[in-house]
Amino acid sequence: MLQITTSDFTFRCESGGQAEPARAGHFRTGHGEVLTPAFMPVGTQGTVKGITPVQLRDIGPQVILGNTYHLGLRPGDELVARLGGLHRFMGWDGPILTDSGGFQVFSLASMRKMTEDGVTFQSHVDGSPQFLSPERSMEIQRNLGSDICMALDECPPGRMERTKLEFSMARTTRWLARSRAVPLQPYQGLFAINQGGTHLDLRRRHLAEALELDARTPFQGFAVGGLSVGEPKEEMNAVLAEFVKELPADRPRYLMGVGTPEDLIFGIEHGVDLFDCVLPTREARHGRILTSKGRLNLKNARHREADRPLDPDCACYTCRTFSRAYLHHLFRCGELLGFTLNTIHNLSYTVELTRAARQALLENRFPAFAQSTRAGWLTEEP
Amino acid sequence: MLQITTSDFTFRCESGGQAEPARAGHFRTGHGEVLTPAFMPVGTQGTVKGITPVQLRDIGPQVILGNTYHLGLRPGDELVARLGGLHRFMGWDGPILTDSGGFQVFSLASMRKMTEDGVTFQSHVDGSPQFLSPERSMEIQRNLGSDICMALDECPPGRMERTKLEFSMARTTRWLARSRAVPLQPYQGLFAINQGGTHLDLRRRHLAEALELDARTPFQGFAVGGLSVGEPKEEMNAVLAEFVKELPADRPRYLMGVGTPEDLIFGIEHGVDLFDCVLPTREARHGRILTSKGRLNLKNARHREADRPLDPDCACYTCRTFSRAYLHHLFRCGELLGFTLNTIHNLSYTVELTRAARQALLENRFPAFAQSTRAGWLTEEP
Repeated sequence: MLQITTSDFTFRCESGGQAEPARAGHFRTGHGEVLTPAFMPVGTQGTVKGITPVQLRDIGPQVILGNTYHLGLRPGDELVARLGGLHRFMGWDGPILTDSGGFQVFSLASMRKMTEDGVTFQSHVDGSPQFLSPERSMEIQRNLGSDICMALDECPPGRMERTKLEFSMARTTRWLARSRAVPLQPYQGLFAINQGGTHLDLRRRHLAEALELDARTPFQGFAVGGLSVGEPKEEMNAVLAEFVKELPADRPRYLMGVGTPEDLIFGIEHGVDLFDCVLPTREARHGRILTSKGRLNLKNARHREADRPLDPDCACYTCRTFSRAYLHHLFRCGELLGFTLNTIHNLSYTVELTRAARQALLENRFPAFAQSTRAGWLTEEP
Repeated sequence: MLQITTSDFTFRCESGGQAEPARAGHFRTGHGEVLTPAFMPVGTQGTVKGITPVQLRDIGPQVILGNTYHLGLRPGDELVARLGGLHRFMGWDGPILTDSGGFQVFSLASMRKMTEDGVTFQSHVDGSPQFLSPERSMEIQRNLGSDICMALDECPPGRMERTKLEFSMARTTRWLARSRAVPLQPYQGLFAINQGGTHLDLRRRHLAEALELDARTPFQGFAVGGLSVGEPKEEMNAVLAEFVKELPADRPRYLMGVGTPEDLIFGIEHGVDLFDCVLPTREARHGRILTSKGRLNLKNARHREADRPLDPDCACYTCRTFSRAYLHHLFRCGELLGFTLNTIHNLSYTVELTRAARQALLENRFPAFAQSTRAGWLTEEP
């Protein structure tokens, strides 16, 4: 089950990519093929919150994400390595991508101090002093044994002043070279992260720098970071529409921390292959449900007696088995099972959305698919 | 799946019962055969906390328990009836027993006022005034559509003065007659509850009164209530050892709210067929694990690096898949999945204990089984 095969991150287009930026494709990791476009559920602490690997397998994501920052602090990457790596530790034999820890250091840790060498910070778990550098991030990810590693970047806040942003990006480029220099396990790939906020020219310059490094030792993929961090949605979309198609076409393109169903369709339209976001899982735990007819709030009294599934178009375990009335009841009671069942649905909906988009791309009907999907969301009361 | 067949609560002994009180047997409910001895997981609010019906089916209990008090208040028994009954509501097609609500009224509700007619109390959910009587308890259970209903009893505290206890028991007998008079659904059985604390003579008198009623309209089973409510364990065991074998042998015998693995073995030895208790599920959520080598506390630092299952003798999903180190990590992080996986194990352990006891009874080796099971628990560090 957990046998590692060789990896080949070369992105093979099966449709699109020539006539239009939207594309269906695939690449191979040490733990299996990844069919794209794909949404990656987030498994921060070695678990996609509230569901078992069996339930996750049933939902069917192509890749899942683990957090370097969290797992490095607890239980510790060396312990995970001694226990056979993250796949074995958490009982998931499919592909795993780990982030670099950068985003979390900049959003969760306190007493942060940046130097050229790295970041010192206080652990949010026990207050202990910690240090994260490109070398340390790579070491953690090598110990975790994920299939895809992310280079450590400095994560500037959404609205940073341009000159400060340029300084930060220059450091991220130097860190990228240092990340690349660290040997990983043979099957592990490394993705570079592009920053630049909503400045198209800065993103292009940053990409050019990464491509210089890439010419010497290729990266296995390219990610767009630093979006969906507070900037207006139109600005994010304007950058994506222009920029994603400029990323190398023969490598997977990953839009980090995005997003909503609307964002996924928009990203796919513009050539994104991979997404991750806590939204489907986090919203599920708050009773906010994603459906083909738009969102619904399970807490709402109108679901109290509703003898129908969350989404009649969804084939997930939750929708096959339980009424809204039951899920409303579980949510009202604060029952653990409610979190689990809502999570199964929201993840199934999101994963199925990317799977259906892929199918539409393969069948040359993606624009119609995108249009009808968006039309469905406009239903007033799902 | 949810089709209801006819019921036949006649208890058929497959072993024991003649030479010794311990017995293996079976009876048939509208939702399937029940093989005994059997432990019933508690599904208070229409869910066994933290696990899905698929996981529950995999654990394999013969019957589960639902709480009349909780479900009557929320979501309300009439709503459950409109939604097709508790089985359909919660997605469980196996047998369900519902309690009478008495125990919860006496332990959870405030502003209790007892009359001959029934109990008025304040809902613990919203403070609304509520009323429970034998007729109302039967109505709730009929609406829920459980396979086994319990007659409403007054639940005296563990150490009630004898004269007060006699007064309470007399009322329970009158309530038993009123419970019996309420028509249930054709497939539903009604169990009588025996009270009397640790007074053997009172229990005998109470049973004699129930048997008078039984001679006119038979009950489908007999339960022993009012034990494990604070009295010393030796007193409980002394009563059980004398009294259980006096309950009608041709009907299932149910020891309510018990118990620990130790209690189950003792109860089976003395002729109990059915048990229920929140202990395995509640302990699981606190990281306290039942194993064939005794109990372990998952929080303990010595499990931090342990690359072995909770119980090497257990074949449950949790033990087949995850190390103690992983479960320790989930528990330390407060991850929902930890509650689920611990619950799967503790319930599997308890259900398997009764299944193995049954097998031992069928093979005429129960005393040896009981002895070796008890010896296993004496291991100092499981």
